[in-house]
Amino acid sequence: MTPSPAGLIITPCTVLTHDDQEQVGFVHDAGIVVREGVIESVISSAQAEELPAAERIDGRGQIALPGLVNCHTHAPMVALRGVAEDLPTEEWFNDVVWPIESNLTEKDVELGARLACAEMIRGGVTCFADHYFSMDAVAAVVEECGIRAHLGEAYFSSQGPQGREKSLEFALRHRGGAGGRITTALAPHAPYTVDDSDLTATALLAREHGLPVHLHAAENRDQTEASIARHGVTPIEVLRRTGILDTDVLIAHGSGILDSDLPILASASGRTAVATAPRGYLKFAWPTTTPVRALHDIGIPVGLATDGAASNNSLDVWESMALTALIQKSTTGDPRWLTSRQALHHASLQSARAVGLGEVVGSIAPGRRADIILVDLTGPHTQPVHDLAATLVHSARSSDVRTTIVDGRVLMRDRELLTIDVPSVTEELSKRLPALLDRSHGRRIQDYDT
Amino acid sequence: MTPSPAGLIITPCTVLTHDDQEQVGFVHDAGIVVREGVIESVISSAQAEELPAAERIDGRGQIALPGLVNCHTHAPMVALRGVAEDLPTEEWFNDVVWPIESNLTEKDVELGARLACAEMIRGGVTCFADHYFSMDAVAAVVEECGIRAHLGEAYFSSQGPQGREKSLEFALRHRGGAGGRITTALAPHAPYTVDDSDLTATALLAREHGLPVHLHAAENRDQTEASIARHGVTPIEVLRRTGILDTDVLIAHGSGILDSDLPILASASGRTAVATAPRGYLKFAWPTTTPVRALHDIGIPVGLATDGAASNNSLDVWESMALTALIQKSTTGDPRWLTSRQALHHASLQSARAVGLGEVVGSIAPGRRADIILVDLTGPHTQPVHDLAATLVHSARSSDVRTTIVDGRVLMRDRELLTIDVPSVTEELSKRLPALLDRSHGRRIQDYDT
Repeated sequence: MTPSPAGLIITPCTVLTHDDQEQVGFVHDAGIVVREGVIESVISSAQAEELPAAERIDGRGQIALPGLVNCHTHAPMVALRGVAEDLPTEEWFNDVVWPIESNLTEKDVELGARLACAEMIRGGVTCFADHYFSMDAVAAVVEECGIRAHLGEAYFSSQGPQGREKSLEFALRHRGGAGGRITTALAPHAPYTVDDSDLTATALLAREHGLPVHLHAAENRDQTEASIARHGVTPIEVLRRTGILDTDVLIAHGSGILDSDLPILASASGRTAVATAPRGYLKFAWPTTTPVRALHDIGIPVGLATDGAASNNSLDVWESMALTALIQKSTTGDPRWLTSRQALHHASLQSARAVGLGEVVGSIAPGRRADIILVDLTGPHTQPVHDLAATLVHSARSSDVRTTIVDGRVLMRDRELLTIDVPSVTEELSKRLPALLDRSHGRRIQDYDT
Repeated sequence: MTPSPAGLIITPCTVLTHDDQEQVGFVHDAGIVVREGVIESVISSAQAEELPAAERIDGRGQIALPGLVNCHTHAPMVALRGVAEDLPTEEWFNDVVWPIESNLTEKDVELGARLACAEMIRGGVTCFADHYFSMDAVAAVVEECGIRAHLGEAYFSSQGPQGREKSLEFALRHRGGAGGRITTALAPHAPYTVDDSDLTATALLAREHGLPVHLHAAENRDQTEASIARHGVTPIEVLRRTGILDTDVLIAHGSGILDSDLPILASASGRTAVATAPRGYLKFAWPTTTPVRALHDIGIPVGLATDGAASNNSLDVWESMALTALIQKSTTGDPRWLTSRQALHHASLQSARAVGLGEVVGSIAPGRRADIILVDLTGPHTQPVHDLAATLVHSARSSDVRTTIVDGRVLMRDRELLTIDVPSVTEELSKRLPALLDRSHGRRIQDYDT
């Protein structure tokens, strides 16, 4: 009996895998069989050669990795890339970004999201967690371009109860959208912009509707100190007392998490994760970074992220992976900590868990959705290969991703984007920039005052 | 009268320039005219269109920058990329790198240098300062592949006076080699491996022969503390008392430079510069980085570098530029310090000065040698452009360099290397790796004992 053709077979290639202890390893000379968007099996290339398939990709000289997950970003902010440079956090928000964002239209968000998805797909990102405004437009772009996303409509208490209601309405309406590629969250902005009663109400809604929460908290040490000075508690303690830690929560940044916060996070009854985006912390000259090792020690997954391009200047999760390894070594003073294999664990399973997809993606294993990237290591900067994990983390670059696949569908082949026309997006966006960047009105969407 | 054809004209493009205060700026819609390897003029693209040329490059959508200079590397160590991961400095040297280097043959050095030049040319590096062994082989590769280099034969006092003599002989024989593309230096390894009498003799030879000195010094805080404990002085004080600071000296790393060293450096009678390679300092978890701001304040140029790929994992000077900006902001606690324009100044004029070529390259200006790279900013990760300097430093990547030109000769066109065959180099190198990596003999070329 002839088996029915697989949808996609990638062979021959080397495959990053996780063993039953979740250790990162590599299977050489392998083939990946994908059927109906799901990884059916990882077999030898010889076996894979024999099987029929509707589509085949030659993986020679390439490494197959689970697609990267950008665990916290504001994708449409690529439109603001480079507008607010070399500024402290407060001026960045109050003098530039929040005044500009008061001009945002749904069309700006749509074009920014499309450009961001192009950048991410080219950089091997197959899923992103977005926390922004006019998210219907982002969802439409996700539907259209084929990427996976975890979306939340952001809100401030200054919007009144309508902010929270809109976030809930968005989350319920888009949950499971784009053929299951869209998952959703409630998205209060942060404890310094959303008050306790709003957070408490959010936590209740999250539990009532089975939705996770994605928010900024303890972003930096200043915020933590301001919270203690004003409220007598840290931002993490605010999350506990408002019930947010009883939900499944994704905390962006957490560089202001104190040692005293760790037992609180460890005893959270919900599934808690933190997203780290170290580039921006360096650029803002924040005094600390996400305490990845301490979070590891209490079993909290830390996913990789870029934040928005207005602060990070790129959506390059590959760079976040390398920087996380380097900055963790530096800040702990321990060159043996956060090895390349650990970095790849953050980039795969921990990032998938952070966005609530720990059983769905994050690993190239039977039953997982086929979110796969192929990385070319034949360039002079990645040769010779003595330690494949180190080559991937410390020598390879996002530009070495040749092919990006989501749900078994090829979104980039040999560096050519198949679902987004970049020149037309940049051209259309450029016409809108003068109106978007106008700050003469003196408005801002919110004040930064931790 | 028809003018004789220029050798090369690049038009239309945007050109990074320096004004008479050395401020970095950009000239748009320009053309660069190159004649006999020298930049003749930067004119309007309309004017450039009218001029005849033997060769033309279309620079549409691209930015012309002075080629990057890798101010401190050990190019052939790309052969060891990834062999010594996640180790403290001492184990890295004593247990892995120095045992392996005792196996080095001239052929290994040649192949490593060729692979390294391929990586650097692809990353927009047009000149590198190399400090290694069997440097005849490196000089031959430089001659053959068309890159520019500042070369020194490294030595330890453990080699006896022959080490120093060989370094001098190399420097004299190769000075001005490869049609002027090779400059040379005396290359004592470091104050912890070369004793005071050898350093004193080196300083005398440098002055006698008009040669600069390139060495490691005050690489990290541990070395500085060990020097004080053993000799009662810092490594910088050793350089002063041995006369090295009376020569033109390029100091690699300097992350262990103390505040008390600054007046010594400021009063050096020779031309002093420091090369910073921050990636490795993070990876080794060194507690400090090069004090770029303090060196700036006393007028000492700081060039960008990668060190060898055995510690840095890449020869990506573009990454060094971005990391220098980020790490300087972070370590000074000042987000306004080391702006993108400052980073580009380090990448251009300061790096050229660091390797003694401050009047020769480092700027796209009439009379400078035509070491030029073209950077493509049409990718989604570099759009839109609100601040061109920020786009270059914080969004662009080395893989955005499309064309690399040295002395007016195109070494890479549209990402295709024209002078190096990478697959044949990697194939030949891979056969030699088992012998190179063998550590069963128990030898090492030197002990690391600061």
